[in-house]
Amino acid sequence: MQIAMVGLGRMGANMVRRLIKAGHECVVFDVSPENIAALVKEGAVGASSMEEMIGKLRAPRSVWLMLPAAITGKIAREVAGHLQPGDTIIDGGNSYYRDAVDLAREFEAQNISFVDVGTSGGVWGLERGYCLMIGGPKESFDRLEPIFASLAPGKDGTGAEAGSGDTAPLGYLHCGASGAGHFVKMVHNGIEYGLMAAYAEGLNILKAADAGSEARAADAETAPLHDPQYYQFDIDVGGVAEVWRHASVISSWLLDLTASTLKTDPELTNFGGKVSDSGEGRWTLRAAVETGVPAPVLSSALFGRFASRDADEYSNKLISAMRYAFGGHSEKH
Amino acid sequence: MQIAMVGLGRMGANMVRRLIKAGHECVVFDVSPENIAALVKEGAVGASSMEEMIGKLRAPRSVWLMLPAAITGKIAREVAGHLQPGDTIIDGGNSYYRDAVDLAREFEAQNISFVDVGTSGGVWGLERGYCLMIGGPKESFDRLEPIFASLAPGKDGTGAEAGSGDTAPLGYLHCGASGAGHFVKMVHNGIEYGLMAAYAEGLNILKAADAGSEARAADAETAPLHDPQYYQFDIDVGGVAEVWRHASVISSWLLDLTASTLKTDPELTNFGGKVSDSGEGRWTLRAAVETGVPAPVLSSALFGRFASRDADEYSNKLISAMRYAFGGHSEKH
Amino acid sequence: MQIAMVGLGRMGANMVRRLIKAGHECVVFDVSPENIAALVKEGAVGASSMEEMIGKLRAPRSVWLMLPAAITGKIAREVAGHLQPGDTIIDGGNSYYRDAVDLAREFEAQNISFVDVGTSGGVWGLERGYCLMIGGPKESFDRLEPIFASLAPGKDGTGAEAGSGDTAPLGYLHCGASGAGHFVKMVHNGIEYGLMAAYAEGLNILKAADAGSEARAADAETAPLHDPQYYQFDIDVGGVAEVWRHASVISSWLLDLTASTLKTDPELTNFGGKVSDSGEGRWTLRAAVETGVPAPVLSSALFGRFASRDADEYSNKLISAMRYAFGGHSEKH
Amino acid sequence: MQIAMVGLGRMGANMVRRLIKAGHECVVFDVSPENIAALVKEGAVGASSMEEMIGKLRAPRSVWLMLPAAITGKIAREVAGHLQPGDTIIDGGNSYYRDAVDLAREFEAQNISFVDVGTSGGVWGLERGYCLMIGGPKESFDRLEPIFASLAPGKDGTGAEAGSGDTAPLGYLHCGASGAGHFVKMVHNGIEYGLMAAYAEGLNILKAADAGSEARAADAETAPLHDPQYYQFDIDVGGVAEVWRHASVISSWLLDLTASTLKTDPELTNFGGKVSDSGEGRWTLRAAVETGVPAPVLSSALFGRFASRDADEYSNKLISAMRYAFGGHSEKH
Repeated sequence: MQIAMVGLGRMGANMVRRLIKAGHECVVFDVSPENIAALVKEGAVGASSMEEMIGKLRAPRSVWLMLPAAITGKIAREVAGHLQPGDTIIDGGNSYYRDAVDLAREFEAQNISFVDVGTSGGVWGLERGYCLMIGGPKESFDRLEPIFASLAPGKDGTGAEAGSGDTAPLGYLHCGASGAGHFVKMVHNGIEYGLMAAYAEGLNILKAADAGSEARAADAETAPLHDPQYYQFDIDVGGVAEVWRHASVISSWLLDLTASTLKTDPELTNFGGKVSDSGEGRWTLRAAVETGVPAPVLSSALFGRFASRDADEYSNKLISAMRYAFGGHSEKH
Repeated sequence: MQIAMVGLGRMGANMVRRLIKAGHECVVFDVSPENIAALVKEGAVGASSMEEMIGKLRAPRSVWLMLPAAITGKIAREVAGHLQPGDTIIDGGNSYYRDAVDLAREFEAQNISFVDVGTSGGVWGLERGYCLMIGGPKESFDRLEPIFASLAPGKDGTGAEAGSGDTAPLGYLHCGASGAGHFVKMVHNGIEYGLMAAYAEGLNILKAADAGSEARAADAETAPLHDPQYYQFDIDVGGVAEVWRHASVISSWLLDLTASTLKTDPELTNFGGKVSDSGEGRWTLRAAVETGVPAPVLSSALFGRFASRDADEYSNKLISAMRYAFGGHSEKH
Repeated sequence: MQIAMVGLGRMGANMVRRLIKAGHECVVFDVSPENIAALVKEGAVGASSMEEMIGKLRAPRSVWLMLPAAITGKIAREVAGHLQPGDTIIDGGNSYYRDAVDLAREFEAQNISFVDVGTSGGVWGLERGYCLMIGGPKESFDRLEPIFASLAPGKDGTGAEAGSGDTAPLGYLHCGASGAGHFVKMVHNGIEYGLMAAYAEGLNILKAADAGSEARAADAETAPLHDPQYYQFDIDVGGVAEVWRHASVISSWLLDLTASTLKTDPELTNFGGKVSDSGEGRWTLRAAVETGVPAPVLSSALFGRFASRDADEYSNKLISAMRYAFGGHSEKH
Repeated sequence: MQIAMVGLGRMGANMVRRLIKAGHECVVFDVSPENIAALVKEGAVGASSMEEMIGKLRAPRSVWLMLPAAITGKIAREVAGHLQPGDTIIDGGNSYYRDAVDLAREFEAQNISFVDVGTSGGVWGLERGYCLMIGGPKESFDRLEPIFASLAPGKDGTGAEAGSGDTAPLGYLHCGASGAGHFVKMVHNGIEYGLMAAYAEGLNILKAADAGSEARAADAETAPLHDPQYYQFDIDVGGVAEVWRHASVISSWLLDLTASTLKTDPELTNFGGKVSDSGEGRWTLRAAVETGVPAPVLSSALFGRFASRDADEYSNKLISAMRYAFGGHSEKH
């Protein structure tokens, strides 16, 4: 079927490629003419403006947005201004699910459907397919199912046929009313933060397993290491990540990627350790707090990212200041 | 090759089955005669006592222990009392790696090798193979490699041939000196706790996504829910677990198992929510603390298990008591 | 000066008493006639309706609300409907600071001032005075300062004179624009949760210091306790809380209250351990998350309260289910 | 009474001063002759070697050690080598309570008593007195009580008379058998870490209350700040710390010190934010883990210190590496 794609970054461009491959007709627009041109070469229909793009669509029109969360609402309203009753806007970005709830209600007045699609799969989605978590009216889901089915992995990664009924095993799911798709994707990312931190903490402990080999200062500001004979291991962290991939309880796709990275860059020299977060982990935590659900692991993972960017600096200075004030302790480092 | 197995519980018995299938000769002993008899039927050589078992072994003898951590040391010493110089004891249980360091040193005086093998794979290992993390002298590893290779998954789950050099992709790895195998397995389990808690917290948030549908009390003891319109989702948690298995970033074996369980028991009626821990998570945390490595996610996961068993009761009572003392707040629940 | 008080619960009634004692004129209203009658006996002017109350006030009128957060906004708007330009509404409850920001803007159009006052001190405030964190226009703060000064502890607990300039050492502070008072009180309560949990966790560890005296099961589901000889202490938790009050680094008012409670109820038999939270800890966490500030201690304290009310049950069941699925582990408890 | 003091650092020297003032006879030794000379001027009896020091003591001798944890055991054994049956060694440092359990048993064979004294009060103890948590035989406690009573604050900070029975209100307590004193002090410090972190996190949130005033990048790597109008506060953190000291629920001695520091150095320019830990927080966590007591707040506080010293760097790099591997995300910072 025909669909328009706005936003041809990493994710948007590959989704277009996958849809073209599956025989769909894609009209594409982006602020960068180069991004448009690249996809036109691969079979997409280019448009040099939002109006032109919408002009090339047949009713009922479907416009898929793949944009940063901070601007999605603004662009969605702009698109809606050009659409007709019966048309549909799909937001496949990492948007806040509350915006989907609000936008859906707002566009309902114009009889424009709003569908929120949480999209997981990253740069690998082109090849493996995208896991899709979908919110919005059931009719919209049904009408767009051929698109979802093609983007999803299906049985073997090459996409599925629409209309199978139980779609979860094919990699796409209608999760509920407007907002449900982004809500589920939000929690997906919250879990993702937790999983990543669990592996990272564990591998960091493996790396420190030789702590008993070094001498420690014997002063009142340094915790002594009792029994250094138990910390004399020199562990090949990358080898361990690889072996764990094979039949261990903690095998996962994130572990596959970690082992692969450690193979080529065992010291992770390409990374500085300042970890970004794009909002979903924060929103997950807010949902946990507001619904009264304990989420100590997910919050620890999020706060670890904040701290990696030194947002704990003032807090740490305060603690040093207290130590100095009561005990005369000066910082060693 | 020939090997003796002591401890024919869930793990030990299946390992014997897998070894027999690969053509190895297994002499088996357990405190339960039934457990022995069952394996004899499947081709194992039974022994009704430790002495008898060891008497049936040819030098150099190899005795594999698959026992609860609390008794492994005692039994290892008992076995060692019957062995000869050049023989080997292998501990494949969830033992503390420090015991391996100590036992290896102790048995060295008798010229008996001690090899510690962290074993992951659970009840699925018989079919999928076991992921093996191995510590001890390189010569012992080399001599026992045919056993490790058969227990490991290999390329397709049916085990590997020994002698391939890079063994991690086959599912077994020599991690270092005595204790290194159990150390790596300990951290594996620490990570496992973290992963499980990350999924569980996230799915719990999904379950609470309908919190806005219920009325909340409007008193000073109850946190108000602003904007209940954003918590009106009725999410099929099992369906979500299933769809995430397909090309999402958080796909994993633990997620496979979770989705499978939710399919047959969506309300988890078979479980009471008192989560045991068998020691490895605790030891991981101790290692983190002693080496000065932050492990907030892994510790949160561990403490969540303690709290599930109500070990936080006195602490919670103290907090209620303080609230009453300063604010006259009475408990609502 | 003259002031009206709406809401004569624990906090509101005592604040009226303290104001009367300092010579202020208090017009009081509450949904409960008994609460009104009690204060009339002590010198307050009673009113049987909101209108009557406001009718008894001289311009510029000042109405102080001391109500649950969930209804404060509604009542504030009702009061505003009866007021005149130049009048002031003060919210001294545990309201959300965002409501103060919004209400201040809303009432500005009517030329009614809105002042938000975070109030700490609990049931002890009558005697010790209340710590006041105040947000809103500086002119409103100045005009109401005699009230704040009387409610505050001052130098000796009996209140202060207005107009001293540096008011923080007297126990009241103009923290900034509308919302700043409740923002600071919100964070105060967030910290309060953290402090309470820190003491509670520590005292719980003291209570468990005899863990080595009991036998532990030696099975694969129970973590062994190495070296039980180090956990043979039978510690008088109440005695320790008392001794810590005297010149230790952790002496505090919360510790005073804790020691006092443990003296009369060492086993805390009056408490069940289901800890409420009234919203401020949640809002603190939201602020931390949205501003990107790590708050692992404050969040752990909040989530501990959620878990005390069994909001972790589904999560724990999921973890038990996973353990059963991969390892055949059955719950022991 | 007569007592020897070994270790004349910050703590030891001030304790000697306080004891001299109370009329006790102090024989002092330290590796630094300057430290000895300074105290001799103030009335102590100096000794230029351990032997000389012990030679100046009358039986039954009492030797108090005030040394870094890492060397206390070694020095204690050296001292014991010079003592006679019936003599007593007191360890007042931040030693591991397990060492006290072991040393007490070891010295018992020589009929030398070993008393462990947890000492809180820091550099303020000279003036305010020291809070003492004491472990060891009751007879030793009774014999040394005049010393404990003088070091403790007593009713007014100037020390107490021995023999009052209920000593906790005077600031010293016999907590139980050998090790109990250091165990209680260990937990005291664990709590101290939690309290400090709670204040520091909260004040850090106050400092970030102007986050809405700055523009944020609108890209996929940056979490958007919804509703920046709610983060426009410019809060005087020092003023808030001061006002909280007066009748708020969170008033404490640590808050007193914090307010005082912020008054003279509001930007904490004297501190770099690398926070040391001296071992007690780690041991507290180990005790929690081994006894199965949840301690999420205390562990978060400890791990925050580790992270302040960049011990999370490898972990953070791993997370960045995973983000790049699945999503092509590059680090922004």
